[in-house]
Amino acid sequence: MSKYFSEKYKALAPYVPGEQPKDKKYVKLNTNESPFPPSQKAQEYAIQAAQDLNLYPDPDCTLLREEIAKLYNVDKDEVIMVNGSDEILNFAFMAYCDKNTPAAFADITYGFYEVFAQINNVPYKVIPLNEKYELNIDDYKNLNSTIFIANPNAPTGIAISLKDIESILNANKDNIVVIDEAYVDFGGESAVSLINKYDNLLVTQTFSKSRSMAGARLGMGFANKKIIQDLNTIRYSQNPYNVNRMTMAVGIGTIKDNEYTIKNCETIKANREYTVKELAKLGFETLNSSANFIFTKNAKVSGEYLYKTLKEKGVLVRYFNKDRLRDYLRITIGNMDQMNTLIEKVKEILEESKWETLKLKEKQKKQT
Amino acid sequence: MSKYFSEKYKALAPYVPGEQPKDKKYVKLNTNESPFPPSQKAQEYAIQAAQDLNLYPDPDCTLLREEIAKLYNVDKDEVIMVNGSDEILNFAFMAYCDKNTPAAFADITYGFYEVFAQINNVPYKVIPLNEKYELNIDDYKNLNSTIFIANPNAPTGIAISLKDIESILNANKDNIVVIDEAYVDFGGESAVSLINKYDNLLVTQTFSKSRSMAGARLGMGFANKKIIQDLNTIRYSQNPYNVNRMTMAVGIGTIKDNEYTIKNCETIKANREYTVKELAKLGFETLNSSANFIFTKNAKVSGEYLYKTLKEKGVLVRYFNKDRLRDYLRITIGNMDQMNTLIEKVKEILEESKWETLKLKEKQKKQT
Repeated sequence: MSKYFSEKYKALAPYVPGEQPKDKKYVKLNTNESPFPPSQKAQEYAIQAAQDLNLYPDPDCTLLREEIAKLYNVDKDEVIMVNGSDEILNFAFMAYCDKNTPAAFADITYGFYEVFAQINNVPYKVIPLNEKYELNIDDYKNLNSTIFIANPNAPTGIAISLKDIESILNANKDNIVVIDEAYVDFGGESAVSLINKYDNLLVTQTFSKSRSMAGARLGMGFANKKIIQDLNTIRYSQNPYNVNRMTMAVGIGTIKDNEYTIKNCETIKANREYTVKELAKLGFETLNSSANFIFTKNAKVSGEYLYKTLKEKGVLVRYFNKDRLRDYLRITIGNMDQMNTLIEKVKEILEESKWETLKLKEKQKKQT
Repeated sequence: MSKYFSEKYKALAPYVPGEQPKDKKYVKLNTNESPFPPSQKAQEYAIQAAQDLNLYPDPDCTLLREEIAKLYNVDKDEVIMVNGSDEILNFAFMAYCDKNTPAAFADITYGFYEVFAQINNVPYKVIPLNEKYELNIDDYKNLNSTIFIANPNAPTGIAISLKDIESILNANKDNIVVIDEAYVDFGGESAVSLINKYDNLLVTQTFSKSRSMAGARLGMGFANKKIIQDLNTIRYSQNPYNVNRMTMAVGIGTIKDNEYTIKNCETIKANREYTVKELAKLGFETLNSSANFIFTKNAKVSGEYLYKTLKEKGVLVRYFNKDRLRDYLRITIGNMDQMNTLIEKVKEILEESKWETLKLKEKQKKQT
């Protein structure tokens, strides 16, 4: 830190993205990426766009918003495009939280919400999930706060119903409710259809997961036109050309090739079901996931031990060293090869640790 | 604006980018883009990167920073990559300005500085250029402010020397001085070589102009490691994956093909000299530009009239309807075809307006 750094940020604890070690080739199941390449059409569009990079992109992303509007059956002025959905989440913290309007979110949810609250210097309420890691809808009524809900939630994977979302929207008419649908395409119910029914709803989505575009950085927001105007005021006051030409082109290609996205989501759902079953045979308990990852634990081995040993064996998963989370691993659902490697390595670890325990017991016996 | 929008942003007046009308094909000399396509090597790298878009980009941009470090003879930890240099300018306003440390910048300079000050809710001092549109170095001493200087300046094109920059750095040891070198490759002297001599220096650059990458969104900052750490704290608290895979690849390809950039800059400088001379023959006075644009006026026609009439004739230039600026046009230096079209259309306008004046005079005579 330099001596010039403003007091207001000196205590900031930035978000820590999932590790990307470069020492060897890993089976990467730690950052919820898609195992499938981007759509062929999207790649072709990128190549075309790369020829015109000397010209600025359209700051309004008009063509891309038109495609999205068609697919989601909304007006293009009810859509805003961003450089990954983290950008729009930050815009929402900027636009709708301040000293008088705190943010509110679950204790166990996307870790970036807390960082956004801190960098924007706004107060926030942390609302504990229940003992089953579920969101208690009644806790979200009349909060006098801007509410952030990941649906499905991360890292649990648990989704809430549209009915529950509507009751939260109705119980917080004076505040914005942000539904972060980063993982909705893997089994959640989207709230996009509600944007004209509720003035106070902002839905955020991303192309990173279901659309195989984590590397392209493209996110979007859906809301009524006034909300979109607010967010554009922020965007045009920070970085109007936030989405580059290639990403815009890849986005258009991906939307035009939506069948590919749907097929990939179906595959992930099937692979998830398979993985949960296989892990259950090995004694794992897995929360009910509607996302492209699972949150799972095994009473016989700690989350940390499993995480570290899997890493040694070339499989990366995500481990959170935090209360209520440290028993668990968050494991991305990849292709069948990746899932079978995971299961095989987990079996090895369980066998080895049995063996280790046996050796330890024998040793103890000898000593007594 | 929605009723939920935070009070703190209600008065925001966002930045207005140069217009991009879609009604017909224009000769675009209004946004300081390069007339040359991106490097061939850069395009090839983009195509490769598009295949792996399902994976997140490296949030540290390691490979790209290594290439830049080599070219600029700095350490890779003295470099930060951003989604266009607007992003790092905003980071600098966030990191180094607050209630106690105002921002300071010229009255005539990049219009976004004022917007950044406003969105970050920090006080700012506006320091008038002298009557020749030059920066008076003595005005920048002991300012007790974070100083932002575009060098060369926009929209004037006028550069200051490294010696002047050093005297500003020395006279503001307790404050950060940001040198915004968006246009430096067209004839300015870069301050990158000074980052280890001055603790308080941050240099920002962009790939948008000299490197034909406005559409890719890539900017960078150079400073000592502590400053870079501060800026990364901000970056990781907002949008760690701010630079996408394709843009990173295009950046690496462009740096590896630096001869192409140098050649293009030489061409722009030659075309600038030609344009200034031809316009002088038509009665234009042009400020001394070290950038890929010129700031020019003609005593016989107003800036607004010229701008509007050129637009009707299919040539877009930039006009600022502001005190001290409204006599002028900012004209991007393009290729020779574009410059000759501009000159031809300007000639037409001057002829026509002579004719209009004549008709008006005749009319007036008849009436008297």
